[in-house]
Amino acid sequence: MSLADCLPPTDQDLPAALAPAECRGMATRLRFRHAGERKVGLRIEVVGPSKAPAVWVAGGISAHRHVVAHARNAAAGWWQDVVGPGRALDPARLRLLSFDWLGADGELDIPIDTADQADAIACALDALGIERLHGFVGASYGGMVALQFAARHPQRVGRIAVLSAADRPHPYASAFRSLQRQIVALGQLQCAETLGLSLARQLAMLSYRTPREFAARFDAAPRIEGGRVRCAAESYLEACGDRYVARWTATAFVRLSESIDLHAVDPATVRVPTALLAVRGDWLAPPEQVEALAARLPAPVGCQVIDSMFGHDAFLKEREPVDRLLRQTLHPL
Amino acid sequence: MSLADCLPPTDQDLPAALAPAECRGMATRLRFRHAGERKVGLRIEVVGPSKAPAVWVAGGISAHRHVVAHARNAAAGWWQDVVGPGRALDPARLRLLSFDWLGADGELDIPIDTADQADAIACALDALGIERLHGFVGASYGGMVALQFAARHPQRVGRIAVLSAADRPHPYASAFRSLQRQIVALGQLQCAETLGLSLARQLAMLSYRTPREFAARFDAAPRIEGGRVRCAAESYLEACGDRYVARWTATAFVRLSESIDLHAVDPATVRVPTALLAVRGDWLAPPEQVEALAARLPAPVGCQVIDSMFGHDAFLKEREPVDRLLRQTLHPL
Repeated sequence: MSLADCLPPTDQDLPAALAPAECRGMATRLRFRHAGERKVGLRIEVVGPSKAPAVWVAGGISAHRHVVAHARNAAAGWWQDVVGPGRALDPARLRLLSFDWLGADGELDIPIDTADQADAIACALDALGIERLHGFVGASYGGMVALQFAARHPQRVGRIAVLSAADRPHPYASAFRSLQRQIVALGQLQCAETLGLSLARQLAMLSYRTPREFAARFDAAPRIEGGRVRCAAESYLEACGDRYVARWTATAFVRLSESIDLHAVDPATVRVPTALLAVRGDWLAPPEQVEALAARLPAPVGCQVIDSMFGHDAFLKEREPVDRLLRQTLHPL
Repeated sequence: MSLADCLPPTDQDLPAALAPAECRGMATRLRFRHAGERKVGLRIEVVGPSKAPAVWVAGGISAHRHVVAHARNAAAGWWQDVVGPGRALDPARLRLLSFDWLGADGELDIPIDTADQADAIACALDALGIERLHGFVGASYGGMVALQFAARHPQRVGRIAVLSAADRPHPYASAFRSLQRQIVALGQLQCAETLGLSLARQLAMLSYRTPREFAARFDAAPRIEGGRVRCAAESYLEACGDRYVARWTATAFVRLSESIDLHAVDPATVRVPTALLAVRGDWLAPPEQVEALAARLPAPVGCQVIDSMFGHDAFLKEREPVDRLLRQTLHPL
């Protein structure tokens, strides 16, 4: 399987500093925890020198294999602000691996467990000939998968960094996601799948951010337009919804959202050294829950709690504390 | 206009302790801030001795005129836990007045301002022959209306108590309500108005409560049912949605939700002594916003911030701190 969007870049896309990269597609069979064996395609990116220590990088359910701009695809990646020269995740010093989540293509319409994602990553490592990862860095859903990977494949990873994730979903966050999925279903009833999906994504955006950020960005008073009341954040949220529905399907949204809620890992089984980061005001992975996880891990390397107006999305925005945590985890001295 | 549900109670409904009450309906014309003059019906309940000091009582957008059980309707009211013998809101010592919000009957399909509600209350007082209220107690939307009433009709009220409300909506809360209204519209588009309204109400419920409460009540892991993931809080939320759609219409929900977002009062114009209560963890009326309001009021009587796992709904649940605040406000010594 070749990846159409890993085309040879034009000269313009190729600043000299961009790291060498490899884009890989592969087909494999995987035994799903809740749905038996299935054939799946994996789409992988590998950025950095082939001899460098390998680090798996995973983000939220709407992240993907393109973590950072590289020599074969100079478009900005989803973690462009955190990965780069001189930083903890430096593609000149590490070999960064990532893939598209199982379910991201919208073709896998079954319950998907974080354990399935972890096993798919183990398959990908087999195909790449990588016996053992130096580290696994996961944020949000990716943090849940990092914990599962460490629990299920402890011999294949040296240490993990888990950002804004815990051993299980929080019951309030699960309730909120369940309503998002029901809104997608409402849109699918007749003729408005895109609208339902957009509204579900807009709700999800609220859970990724905080009242503090909205108070700072959208301070204007709501006003009446066409007989209806519109509030200041609506255009922003609509743009978020539009961008999402242009790239994702309802099935992908629902199955990956469900996957967060299916996540469950016994902290006692995570025997790999684990660094944790939590954010005050993030109610998807509340600091209390992350700290409780840290207390039950066999090999904790610390649990940092930071303040951020970006809440759950802090891992995308708070470059310095994230870099510090990753440096301590991946380059301990 | 008579009220069908103010029927003479049966003996069984009539414990001797229930306070005397009067149910009043009236028609009037009102000049709406955003929609010109309209004819409206007001449905009012008055509980307590006719000579006692009059106190207006107002709750959230889904509250109504029936605040407490009384001699003509022994069904529990929406503030049954707070109002009663020996408490600050004692119908033996005070004459408690309340009404159904403009828009609650679903027939008024126009933007409704909190200023309109305040003016409707002034009309109701005229009809009842009450020149001046001893006090006005408002929680949530009712607190917004209390502020408007004090700003627009300062000669008609001695003091106000504002619980979990501020001088304007919070931008994050406005965004969340806007999405709820768009879900109602999606339901209407899909020929599924009841389902859309139920989902919107279920989302609203999440904003009224807290992660802490959900963690305590709905701790069971999500599970797969019929190929879909269901979480522990879903049955509870569905029951909330069902109860809501049995009593309310989409128009009432949308117009009263909008009314919260249209609310704006200049604190400098609230010259009546004002006591405030806010709840840590309530992101609909965050303590910072309520404290900022207190700092700008000409006649503050204090701002109490309490802890409650019930968040925005604390005024319905935290009987003791609410009673203390109301006692200090209504019966100062």
